[in-house]
Amino acid sequence: MNWQRPDGRKSDRLRPITFEKDFTRFATSSVLTRCGDTQVLCTVSIQDGVPKFLEGKGQGWLTAEYRMLPGATPQRQTRELMKLSGRTQEIQRLIGRSLRAALDLEALGERTAIVDADVLQADAGTRTTAITGGFVALAMAMDKLVAAGALARSPIRHQIAAISVGLLHGEPYLDLNYTEDVAAEIDCNIVMNDRLEIVELQGTAEEGSFSRAQLDRILDVAEKGMQELFVAQRAALEG
Amino acid sequence: MNWQRPDGRKSDRLRPITFEKDFTRFATSSVLTRCGDTQVLCTVSIQDGVPKFLEGKGQGWLTAEYRMLPGATPQRQTRELMKLSGRTQEIQRLIGRSLRAALDLEALGERTAIVDADVLQADAGTRTTAITGGFVALAMAMDKLVAAGALARSPIRHQIAAISVGLLHGEPYLDLNYTEDVAAEIDCNIVMNDRLEIVELQGTAEEGSFSRAQLDRILDVAEKGMQELFVAQRAALEG
Amino acid sequence: MNWQRPDGRKSDRLRPITFEKDFTRFATSSVLTRCGDTQVLCTVSIQDGVPKFLEGKGQGWLTAEYRMLPGATPQRQTRELMKLSGRTQEIQRLIGRSLRAALDLEALGERTAIVDADVLQADAGTRTTAITGGFVALAMAMDKLVAAGALARSPIRHQIAAISVGLLHGEPYLDLNYTEDVAAEIDCNIVMNDRLEIVELQGTAEEGSFSRAQLDRILDVAEKGMQELFVAQRAALEG
Amino acid sequence: MNWQRPDGRKSDRLRPITFEKDFTRFATSSVLTRCGDTQVLCTVSIQDGVPKFLEGKGQGWLTAEYRMLPGATPQRQTRELMKLSGRTQEIQRLIGRSLRAALDLEALGERTAIVDADVLQADAGTRTTAITGGFVALAMAMDKLVAAGALARSPIRHQIAAISVGLLHGEPYLDLNYTEDVAAEIDCNIVMNDRLEIVELQGTAEEGSFSRAQLDRILDVAEKGMQELFVAQRAALEG
Amino acid sequence: MNWQRPDGRKSDRLRPITFEKDFTRFATSSVLTRCGDTQVLCTVSIQDGVPKFLEGKGQGWLTAEYRMLPGATPQRQTRELMKLSGRTQEIQRLIGRSLRAALDLEALGERTAIVDADVLQADAGTRTTAITGGFVALAMAMDKLVAAGALARSPIRHQIAAISVGLLHGEPYLDLNYTEDVAAEIDCNIVMNDRLEIVELQGTAEEGSFSRAQLDRILDVAEKGMQELFVAQRAALEG
Amino acid sequence: MNWQRPDGRKSDRLRPITFEKDFTRFATSSVLTRCGDTQVLCTVSIQDGVPKFLEGKGQGWLTAEYRMLPGATPQRQTRELMKLSGRTQEIQRLIGRSLRAALDLEALGERTAIVDADVLQADAGTRTTAITGGFVALAMAMDKLVAAGALARSPIRHQIAAISVGLLHGEPYLDLNYTEDVAAEIDCNIVMNDRLEIVELQGTAEEGSFSRAQLDRILDVAEKGMQELFVAQRAALEG
Repeated sequence: MNWQRPDGRKSDRLRPITFEKDFTRFATSSVLTRCGDTQVLCTVSIQDGVPKFLEGKGQGWLTAEYRMLPGATPQRQTRELMKLSGRTQEIQRLIGRSLRAALDLEALGERTAIVDADVLQADAGTRTTAITGGFVALAMAMDKLVAAGALARSPIRHQIAAISVGLLHGEPYLDLNYTEDVAAEIDCNIVMNDRLEIVELQGTAEEGSFSRAQLDRILDVAEKGMQELFVAQRAALEG
Repeated sequence: MNWQRPDGRKSDRLRPITFEKDFTRFATSSVLTRCGDTQVLCTVSIQDGVPKFLEGKGQGWLTAEYRMLPGATPQRQTRELMKLSGRTQEIQRLIGRSLRAALDLEALGERTAIVDADVLQADAGTRTTAITGGFVALAMAMDKLVAAGALARSPIRHQIAAISVGLLHGEPYLDLNYTEDVAAEIDCNIVMNDRLEIVELQGTAEEGSFSRAQLDRILDVAEKGMQELFVAQRAALEG
Repeated sequence: MNWQRPDGRKSDRLRPITFEKDFTRFATSSVLTRCGDTQVLCTVSIQDGVPKFLEGKGQGWLTAEYRMLPGATPQRQTRELMKLSGRTQEIQRLIGRSLRAALDLEALGERTAIVDADVLQADAGTRTTAITGGFVALAMAMDKLVAAGALARSPIRHQIAAISVGLLHGEPYLDLNYTEDVAAEIDCNIVMNDRLEIVELQGTAEEGSFSRAQLDRILDVAEKGMQELFVAQRAALEG
Repeated sequence: MNWQRPDGRKSDRLRPITFEKDFTRFATSSVLTRCGDTQVLCTVSIQDGVPKFLEGKGQGWLTAEYRMLPGATPQRQTRELMKLSGRTQEIQRLIGRSLRAALDLEALGERTAIVDADVLQADAGTRTTAITGGFVALAMAMDKLVAAGALARSPIRHQIAAISVGLLHGEPYLDLNYTEDVAAEIDCNIVMNDRLEIVELQGTAEEGSFSRAQLDRILDVAEKGMQELFVAQRAALEG
Repeated sequence: MNWQRPDGRKSDRLRPITFEKDFTRFATSSVLTRCGDTQVLCTVSIQDGVPKFLEGKGQGWLTAEYRMLPGATPQRQTRELMKLSGRTQEIQRLIGRSLRAALDLEALGERTAIVDADVLQADAGTRTTAITGGFVALAMAMDKLVAAGALARSPIRHQIAAISVGLLHGEPYLDLNYTEDVAAEIDCNIVMNDRLEIVELQGTAEEGSFSRAQLDRILDVAEKGMQELFVAQRAALEG
Repeated sequence: MNWQRPDGRKSDRLRPITFEKDFTRFATSSVLTRCGDTQVLCTVSIQDGVPKFLEGKGQGWLTAEYRMLPGATPQRQTRELMKLSGRTQEIQRLIGRSLRAALDLEALGERTAIVDADVLQADAGTRTTAITGGFVALAMAMDKLVAAGALARSPIRHQIAAISVGLLHGEPYLDLNYTEDVAAEIDCNIVMNDRLEIVELQGTAEEGSFSRAQLDRILDVAEKGMQELFVAQRAALEG
């Protein structure tokens, strides 16, 4: 039995993804990333200095914050005040680790890049969209530092993107939307660099389990999507 | 001595204001309001039921939340976690009171409208933009309730808008941007309904004081701006 | 139709106001202010140094805290722990701004005056009583600094007082008590200096709205009350 | 070597203690208790119902809250927000347990008495003053319930008072003020009922230790003070 | 170049693992699990009822909490108060998901199993030890429900265990201790069931990245360790 | 009428008490103390430096933290997050004061000893067990400082232990377990040094009151238990 995708996509197809650069203009850089109906505003702010644990080590740092606006979903979600949910913390730590993998932190110098990923509209895939779009904003911010003479060359050393793959009826489907995400037995989030090496791999069986053979097929589909994302990022950055 | 406005506006001129309806589509209604470089995303979510203190009184309620995204300003602002600043609380209470004045709460029935005003970019006037744009989103949400058959007619009873006026060198200037806001001795926020009656009036002398004669001139300028805002709101709603 | 005041006052009459100086003796100064049945204990503490954002600017600062004791009202009120309500924050910010307008902050030097306004009994008008009584305590504290040789002359540059005016059946009434406050359509709090210039003006229509003509009549009544308050403050300070 | 008391008292003498009844008038009862320079405002509020763990058991409850106003001491103390200090929690639990010992909780019925002890001025002995004055306020509140016909007779079953005794140079001194409290090696707080039975006994050696013989002498002095407190409470209640 | 393991183990060898059952006796079940120098006390408490979102669905639930005692590491760690770190939240969510995979939640009925994993001593691998030992405690708790007649048969449907594998100099090493964990470029945590299917897979490149070929070798080593863990768990449960 | 102890002990007998030294090995010292069914893991961590209020005074400090693990009781207890209960704060302050009485703080030098008392299993007497076992861990930690050459001699100046005594049917019983603790009218916790001088004495009548004669008998029983505890501590330290 096969899964009929709600938007008619083939199992290995991405949703349309676009990067609207400079959506806002006061932060160092800003990209409104749309992946299907998911919309994430990624802004990057550069600050002098690094956190305490890195002081004097001659390197920079990158950290990320992630939030969902209350009106991003059909059922309004309460803002997180007093404490962040485990989900939010997991996601912002994942975004931070993934985008640090894009950077030569020593070349950045004693600066901190703060990536804010605010989800304006959520149709699943918000964390992967935040990483993929966050990379574009990060590259733009680095280019600005170069243009301003603060850096001799961009400290970007890898292109980074992320995508989800789910198992539905035992078969892998690329880039799930909300309806699919709810239906999937297995949900994998994969972050890769432009050599198609794995930076992060998180596979979770909310129900059931998966075999190593299925993992292989998941990674096949992910690689295909990843290649398309890298092309889209480059087109946006050169556009 | 006169104040030369940074964008060359005359003292009684508004910044360009636009309302992008349905900027997101999962909340009941959504309007991205741009007033000069200030951008506020207003979404309205309708929920069944009312807060405890109103239960069984046969009326509805409206409440508002206001936040500034960290990347909305050139200097990144830390998110408010653990506790809201006094400024944020004042603003969201003001938005709530002002927009309740637009509604016949009994006609709304036992429903709660939640207005979320998220500032994507801040160049002063964020609270007044949130009220003016929030009204458009609120009217749209009420129309949807009517279209869905939940209400026989829209419970909107007044059009509501808000504007700031500042005193610079003792003279009133309409709709200050950030540079002007910092320079102003006196800052007034005025909320009116479409009969040009005052709903809220907040005049604050951060430094110095103002006379009753100056207050009169401030209100003259405010009334002129208000009339233009009401026209713009109607155009957006009918567009 | 007219409003019959519960205590038989004419519409433009204040409640009896008294200032009990040195009610406590460990703080720099202390005044128990009674305005009708409203009782606010205002203490002023002077500390060396200023907040971070003012360091090295050669000026002083004043900040205020406001709380209501749980037993201040017939229905006991829960203490605010974990977070302050928006109402409390608004009030303490208002008290702070208003009393800073009394001071020549440069003449104060790098000191911070902390005004604590604790409401022992609440019959409306607690914020205006806190400002009017807080001014007396502040002037006393400045006199002590002069007496102690820490300052050559008092940095008080304006006398400051505050009063509320409400609209009941469309007519202005001065200095509302609790019963009147609940019944009023419009509630204005006005802070003025001794030249009868406006320092703060906050008019709120909890229900309805008010015209500019009504605003003028509100301010007429406020000015009359303000003059009496300035006389009472001076009598207390000279007593 | 002997300790010369700052106010010339003999070692077994109390400070002057007075109870100003009805200091405020909106709570069920209110007593401003002054013990030397220590001033504690005790108010009692009666509420219907009991905490969850007592529901349906046909008995009442009493709970207490204790706070020190920031201006109560020469060095201003920061308000406790976000979390109560261990000291504050210990004290309010002690006040609650001690005053519950005054009551026949079954005779109170399913009501909760909340005792608020707010320290307006602190010269040591604030917790014992809160208990001794809190008892007077509690008895007044119970009399009001009887007068209002809510109870047939007062549920007070014991008179309760509290006093401190400290060891200075190995000798016991009654009712320490702040200077003495800092100098004392040992600090005991004793709560007794009018049969001179012990309800609470807390002896703490901040430095050093004490023998059983010294404990006996501490209790001798405490008993003497306790008898005078019971007389003063009765005089106030009958006054 | 090879990595010489500090304890001389071969690259695919587990540390000694033991399960001390009934280490404490008041919780439904308790197992002190030691994996090398890592010690985790796992207790299971069974409560009637389920969280709100599951009420009336006729199924049970399992949730987990994880904490590290301050003295568990050479450098004392501050307790998490006010808010949990992202790391702690990630780990306790992982433990919960993994152990839910062991259960037939419908067969459990409307009960909640709470697994508390408290790390008494930490030498890396605390989350995997918590899962592997938590499974033993969970199976014991289920057996008690059966013995008490509350359930007809144990709702355990899969045996669950977890292990870490790290890449050091590009080669996979099983069950890292602290020294190795710090040195590893890549850290994978793998949770499997007794059919060697994957329940959770989390691979993180703190620095660098890994290829699909390396992932395969990581999983080979993990499978070998997993088989030994399942044997050890069964021995403990039958012992 | 007499009380029949659940475990058949005579009224003046302790429960069996054991000290398992080095239960964990990463903290400076660690002792798992078992008193009947109560189990408390006490670890001591030594850190350089002292809290702010002691800096530059040439002395050391000791502070304690106390927590109960959720599975320590038959009914699982929720972890304290966001704020500590008054009970927990009272207990950890008591442990800190009591163990400071064991130390010559000047001889310790500018170091801080942190005692963590984590209750693995609770059958009453957890605070006294924490103090008695905490002393053993503290003495071990001091010996390690001496062995490491950091101190010339141990700064331990007194042996410290603690025990509870309760009144049941008016008679004193030593070292109550949980069943007895619930039944007791009066609960005393006594901390003494090895000269049988009192360091802390806390007597609480949850219900009723006690006479001075009863207090004397309570202290007689406590002294007897205390002597046995000192012997057990010395045996453990020398073992």
